[in-house]
Amino acid sequence: MIRTAQTAKSFTLEAKGKAAPIIVSSDDWPGVQHAADEFAQDVQRVTGALPTRSAQASDVDAVLVGTMGHSSLIDDLVRSGKLSTAGVAGQWEAGVTEVVENPMPGVKRALVIAGADKRGTIFGLYTLSEQIGVSPWYWWADVPVKTHDALYVKAGRHVMATPAVKYRGIFLNDEAPALTNWAQEKFGGKNSKFYTHVFELLLRLRANYLWPAMWDNAFNEDDPLNPKLADEYGIVMGTSHHEPMIRAQKEWHKHGTGEWDYTTNKDVLTKFWTEGIARNKEYESTITIGMRGDGDMAMSASANTKLLEGIVADQRKIIAEKADPKVKNPQIWALYKEVQEYYEKGMRVPDDVTLLWCDDNWGNNRRLPTAAERKRPGGAGIYYHFDYVGDPRSYKWLNVTPITKVWEQMHLALQYGADRVWIVNVGDLKPMEFPIEFFLTMARDPKLWDKDHLQQYTDAWSAREFGAEHGAEIGELISGYSKLNRRRTPELLEPETYSFTEGHEADRVQAEWAALVKKADAVRTQLPQEYQAAYFELAYYPVKASAVVNDMMFAAGRNHLYAKQGRASANHWADVTRSLFAEDAKLSAEYNGLLDGRWNHMMDQTHLGYYAWFDPPRNIMPAVSQVDVPQTTQLGVYPEGGAGKYMHKPLPEFDSVNRQTRTIDLGLMGTKPVSFTATTSAPWIVLSKMSGDVVSDEAIAVSIDWSKAPKGRSEGSVTITDSTHNATKVMLNANNLAHTRGFVEDAGAVTIDAAQFMENDAASGVRWEVLPDFGETRSGIESFPVLAPSTEKLNEQACVSYEFTLTSAGTRTLETILAPTLPFQPDHGLRFTVGLDHAAAITADMWPKLTDEEWRKAVSDGVRRVSVPLGELAAGAHTMHVCRVDAGVVLERFVIYGEHRPGEYLGPIESAVAKP
Amino acid sequence: MIRTAQTAKSFTLEAKGKAAPIIVSSDDWPGVQHAADEFAQDVQRVTGALPTRSAQASDVDAVLVGTMGHSSLIDDLVRSGKLSTAGVAGQWEAGVTEVVENPMPGVKRALVIAGADKRGTIFGLYTLSEQIGVSPWYWWADVPVKTHDALYVKAGRHVMATPAVKYRGIFLNDEAPALTNWAQEKFGGKNSKFYTHVFELLLRLRANYLWPAMWDNAFNEDDPLNPKLADEYGIVMGTSHHEPMIRAQKEWHKHGTGEWDYTTNKDVLTKFWTEGIARNKEYESTITIGMRGDGDMAMSASANTKLLEGIVADQRKIIAEKADPKVKNPQIWALYKEVQEYYEKGMRVPDDVTLLWCDDNWGNNRRLPTAAERKRPGGAGIYYHFDYVGDPRSYKWLNVTPITKVWEQMHLALQYGADRVWIVNVGDLKPMEFPIEFFLTMARDPKLWDKDHLQQYTDAWSAREFGAEHGAEIGELISGYSKLNRRRTPELLEPETYSFTEGHEADRVQAEWAALVKKADAVRTQLPQEYQAAYFELAYYPVKASAVVNDMMFAAGRNHLYAKQGRASANHWADVTRSLFAEDAKLSAEYNGLLDGRWNHMMDQTHLGYYAWFDPPRNIMPAVSQVDVPQTTQLGVYPEGGAGKYMHKPLPEFDSVNRQTRTIDLGLMGTKPVSFTATTSAPWIVLSKMSGDVVSDEAIAVSIDWSKAPKGRSEGSVTITDSTHNATKVMLNANNLAHTRGFVEDAGAVTIDAAQFMENDAASGVRWEVLPDFGETRSGIESFPVLAPSTEKLNEQACVSYEFTLTSAGTRTLETILAPTLPFQPDHGLRFTVGLDHAAAITADMWPKLTDEEWRKAVSDGVRRVSVPLGELAAGAHTMHVCRVDAGVVLERFVIYGEHRPGEYLGPIESAVAKP
Repeated sequence: MIRTAQTAKSFTLEAKGKAAPIIVSSDDWPGVQHAADEFAQDVQRVTGALPTRSAQASDVDAVLVGTMGHSSLIDDLVRSGKLSTAGVAGQWEAGVTEVVENPMPGVKRALVIAGADKRGTIFGLYTLSEQIGVSPWYWWADVPVKTHDALYVKAGRHVMATPAVKYRGIFLNDEAPALTNWAQEKFGGKNSKFYTHVFELLLRLRANYLWPAMWDNAFNEDDPLNPKLADEYGIVMGTSHHEPMIRAQKEWHKHGTGEWDYTTNKDVLTKFWTEGIARNKEYESTITIGMRGDGDMAMSASANTKLLEGIVADQRKIIAEKADPKVKNPQIWALYKEVQEYYEKGMRVPDDVTLLWCDDNWGNNRRLPTAAERKRPGGAGIYYHFDYVGDPRSYKWLNVTPITKVWEQMHLALQYGADRVWIVNVGDLKPMEFPIEFFLTMARDPKLWDKDHLQQYTDAWSAREFGAEHGAEIGELISGYSKLNRRRTPELLEPETYSFTEGHEADRVQAEWAALVKKADAVRTQLPQEYQAAYFELAYYPVKASAVVNDMMFAAGRNHLYAKQGRASANHWADVTRSLFAEDAKLSAEYNGLLDGRWNHMMDQTHLGYYAWFDPPRNIMPAVSQVDVPQTTQLGVYPEGGAGKYMHKPLPEFDSVNRQTRTIDLGLMGTKPVSFTATTSAPWIVLSKMSGDVVSDEAIAVSIDWSKAPKGRSEGSVTITDSTHNATKVMLNANNLAHTRGFVEDAGAVTIDAAQFMENDAASGVRWEVLPDFGETRSGIESFPVLAPSTEKLNEQACVSYEFTLTSAGTRTLETILAPTLPFQPDHGLRFTVGLDHAAAITADMWPKLTDEEWRKAVSDGVRRVSVPLGELAAGAHTMHVCRVDAGVVLERFVIYGEHRPGEYLGPIESAVAKP
Repeated sequence: MIRTAQTAKSFTLEAKGKAAPIIVSSDDWPGVQHAADEFAQDVQRVTGALPTRSAQASDVDAVLVGTMGHSSLIDDLVRSGKLSTAGVAGQWEAGVTEVVENPMPGVKRALVIAGADKRGTIFGLYTLSEQIGVSPWYWWADVPVKTHDALYVKAGRHVMATPAVKYRGIFLNDEAPALTNWAQEKFGGKNSKFYTHVFELLLRLRANYLWPAMWDNAFNEDDPLNPKLADEYGIVMGTSHHEPMIRAQKEWHKHGTGEWDYTTNKDVLTKFWTEGIARNKEYESTITIGMRGDGDMAMSASANTKLLEGIVADQRKIIAEKADPKVKNPQIWALYKEVQEYYEKGMRVPDDVTLLWCDDNWGNNRRLPTAAERKRPGGAGIYYHFDYVGDPRSYKWLNVTPITKVWEQMHLALQYGADRVWIVNVGDLKPMEFPIEFFLTMARDPKLWDKDHLQQYTDAWSAREFGAEHGAEIGELISGYSKLNRRRTPELLEPETYSFTEGHEADRVQAEWAALVKKADAVRTQLPQEYQAAYFELAYYPVKASAVVNDMMFAAGRNHLYAKQGRASANHWADVTRSLFAEDAKLSAEYNGLLDGRWNHMMDQTHLGYYAWFDPPRNIMPAVSQVDVPQTTQLGVYPEGGAGKYMHKPLPEFDSVNRQTRTIDLGLMGTKPVSFTATTSAPWIVLSKMSGDVVSDEAIAVSIDWSKAPKGRSEGSVTITDSTHNATKVMLNANNLAHTRGFVEDAGAVTIDAAQFMENDAASGVRWEVLPDFGETRSGIESFPVLAPSTEKLNEQACVSYEFTLTSAGTRTLETILAPTLPFQPDHGLRFTVGLDHAAAITADMWPKLTDEEWRKAVSDGVRRVSVPLGELAAGAHTMHVCRVDAGVVLERFVIYGEHRPGEYLGPIESAVAKP
């Protein structure tokens, strides 16, 4: 719509240092006036020319801004037939932006921005702001404004439809120490000087809804201008799920007398709540009803359904008496934690109340409306989390939520009718910029970006902030770090999370981080100076700081393992751990010091050394050990797959399809260097080196020359002899396979990414589809459409199938690795069936029993694991069918294993496929 | 018997630089000749004068040495009526030492040393050696010989009785790296130059039996002089429990072909065994029969009773054919691990075979003979451990077996008839000197030292080695370090073993170590130079090195806790951990360097960083963390009993009987010092300081002025305000009690040492008696006599009773802390009964089910814990009766607790007793 060169009948927003004036009726909403001022400044930011706010005689072009039915300017245009309101008028937050010729005397051409309501107009303005080159994050993330000499608006009419979700907003929560200390330093607290920046951000993101900070904060009392300005700007205020009747928890601590207990202190509570409703009656709000215990705790055991229903009835009486009937404020009942249990046991509120369903605090919806509930006029919403303080460990440092996950869960939510409210806990707001905008964008227009284009969304977002030439690169950084962080949050990461002894897992994961850092460093050197701060905040810091934390854990893990092995280099890895710990602190300080401390304190959050759900008071380095290294000459030999002197066993098997490379690590056990020679028992065993000096750590790569290896299984060995004539013999087995099909077992396990199916058979109008880049590894698959009913009959199920070859007969177990979706419908679980060859299919349920312990493990691991016994299987080829029963099941991987369950956190690398 | 001044008719062994000659018939045993030579040298060591080995014309006094029936000298004396053999002749290893006037022409007075057999004579000589001042450990532990100008033997006859246990010896095992490397350096291996030192040591200790080192050692083949000299010296050789037919495991690895499997390789095995019996047929040996798997592993699952009985029958056939019938070598069947299970399932060997019962490798007898088994002519023996390589973690560094434990278990063994063989695994021999001698002394003459005089034994032993003036002090060091080490072996010790948050347990245990070290340091400065090496080996090193390891764990534990608390001093404790790790290495090096490396390698054993049963290849420091300390001013306040900011709770309760002192720790959370003031809510709360500066860590001691405290329970608080005006309020409760009796509950738990009974009622001829200093804390109690039958009827039970007061009503659990005795009789467990007030007594069994897991926990903890539910109890006074059912139960402590199980590893400190 915006052009920098003139086209036929285009509207000139600015050219040659002169900007078109912006005209708003004086009778329009103050919020519209304010947004028009901001828009004028945006034009100036881009072009250097500040539009005037009233027309001059000399103007032939003008921007006409107004709200239908609330602006004499717009209403005149409509009456005169110059502007059509068709498809817009009366629609919540809808609007039209149109270039109109000769709209009124003295104006030759107008850009008309007309909203069906106040926010319709405001959103029209900020949409244009974004289009001319002002990022919604220009203030909050220092994104430079792209300047232009001239700006033109292409002729035409653009209708902005009503958003899919009515109330779309964020919850500033868990806001200490970072946001709190920052706001204190910059504004003297969370007052209106602070909040107007939040309001403006939300409007630029075309959101309309805010739950204010409430950790020892009282929005309405801390600064009386807060609610007044929110309403003026056009922001609908809510209170958090456990703060009923527009009153902050802090207000109760200040004013309340007696207990926060309706059975014993009803009068005081009634007065307290009545004051809240009366105080804010003129303002657009959502009114939380119901009650939790004080301090966001569950109410006492004696709390019960009848009591809560009575509380709600009494609260509605207060609202009916004290609220302004002109301000149609919805009532919200948040079904958080135990409150959802009351609901499931039968507690109900009137049908006009919006039911706010909540995720499990880890981005998994606990419950979505049933078909019956979808008919309730009050509708339903979702309370979601990008930040959480609680079990199993809080996550409040960096973004750990990939938008692939947000899309999958919020798509489900929308399809199941949760479209009245979307509110997301964003912690300190920074550094959650990226997922915040995606969440709000999806809430506004979910059709804009579907599951197959989420990386394009990320690239486009990055291109908007940093220029098209860096969009794809930075997009990859952003999706990369959030995906890798979600595998295990930095807070949950431990030195032993990834396996050091199986599948080189720790090395592989560390290499993934290193690749991201390399890319991030390269981009950093390329970006101009003015982009450096935004880049550091939005991409570089999260990538680099996450990588440093991961590296620190890897270093500590190596220290632990090498110490057990008696390797001298264990002490080196202790030093590395310490230096990475210092680097982490340096990176946080660098963030806090950006632009002369503009974001000072924003990275005060501790993130290292969690040992329970709460954050540690200080960052704690992972504990490291050291070994006593004698002044001797001694070589340590450590074959892959084992650790320690009593664990000698052959190297994991080699086979001619997977064509593995195995390693034999060498390390010093004394202070003095050693040389070694390596010999093999057969000419088909290939070593990366046959001799050498060991001065620290070395590795010999072992592989097989399959052109020389005998057919079938052969035994062999590698012997390492050191310069003191000590010899270590490492046994190995090589399997030169014939007649394999599909995925071929690799050292006792067949590992298949779910998206790598051989066939995909739709049934009952349902089929499995790939969720690209979803989850911890390659991707996921989910059945669509998600509203399709459960298919319990085998012949009605959509199925994917996989072919694989076992290299030996024996008992096998299938481990399915799934997204940790929760059973969000009360009448059934999350089921799928597994059939092998021609055997009867087995039905598996993701959560036969949803215990706290299993849930904690699943959200910690980022995946749910469900095992299906496959019984005795013959060696050779098999076909596995995996079929859909219930919607919402997302499969990521399959691991079919025998006696030894592979020890990798993510599962083994995918098995190789037999060549046809 | 020995005097340094002449008395009437005393025999002059040496005076004025002239020693009495030592005369042995040339027809006596070579071992006697050898011992006489050694004795002569001992006289020289003491006096400087070397006795001649034949009489000179000028001599009027002579030492006449010989074996009855094997010495013309002695036989002549007997024939001539000069020497009586009454009560001696024909008795195994008995002897007489007597001053005889005019024994023969030319000799005016003789000291006659006459044995009933070879070792009877040898032991007579070495007994005298010890008495004149040559410690059995003069060579093996550098104990200085006490010199004298003159030596006289008091006139009289001294009969040395037959030892209680026939074969008494040690097993050199788990002998790498220490003993192996040392012997390699000093002797070029475990050859006869090495072994003769072992033989001599055993004989000086009046032992007769040896199982040789067998980790890649073959006693009979490594040096053919080994068995020959053993027999000459007088040592009976055995082989370890899994090496049948006098053949070492290493010999099989060298000569064996095919599998170590009788079902498939009978001919080869038969030949192998036949060679063993034939080879050693002239030597005194015990012949192990039966079979275990290769490498001391259990035989395959297909092994069964019938097969093993067949093997034994075939082995006995070989012995009957090949052994020399003159050498009456006993056959031994070791009932180790799984072999005991075969026995219990019915496998039997002929009655003349000695059954060698084995402890659990941790000093607890698994099985003792039943009344029926005690009638077997082959008798029974015990294989015991002072060193072990295996589950749950090896212990092969220092002595961790207090002799109180040895006495208790070996007393049981002897009473139950295990008196044919006592063999103890002593690891590298050093530093097990002290328990080795106790074990062998008890085997020889168990009546010499009873349970009430074990500390006197230790003191006397120390006095012999270091002089009477240091006996008690060093005795205390030796019993002290072994007792504290047995609480938790150094290998099993972890930074969190002892509680940092309850009962100041870590501080108290650390103080116990510090007190020992202080004493050890003081003695070290007092001892003359010539005693320094022996003192370092026998007392100083084990005390100091154990204390350093404990301190290191405490430092690491503080580092972990303080890091979690965000205390800056966490970093200091990391430094302390590192410096103690270095000190440990320095102490080992000091041992290895003693006397110019005389014991080089003897302290090569790693002992830090165990993570499985086997020893780590290098010592590994306990992992430590560090915290990121900001440059701020912040005080951390840490009340006793809780850790971390979300665990605030009142201080543990105060009461007027226990009169506790509680602490509030203060620490810096930033780099800058803080000052504080402390205030109390009531005048009866007493603080050790009311203000001060915190520059590192501080503690405020909180106590109650009971003269001012109100009666009953009162609430109060202490408020700490720092110089930045942050205030922390710590709540407390004080209970000013009235009407208490017995032990009074201390903050929710009554803790009673078992020996502190109020009444002790014998019944059925049985009564509980105290085992002084036994176990982990004060002592233990056990019922005696131990052969008394089980008393299942309540009115036939011996009982002890205890009175205690609960300060509140509620459910209580009794935790009994017991020695980890195993159920050593097959027909019953280890039961006792607990009766409270007038309620029916409950019968408890120490091992309702003896699982591997529970056993591992018990031997790791050094105690077995058995809980008895006591149900709902009223506040006020109660009486508990604990009564005996089965012999062998040793009670150490009782902890009666309510909702919170006290977290101390050893249990809380003993509760105070109400004043009458």
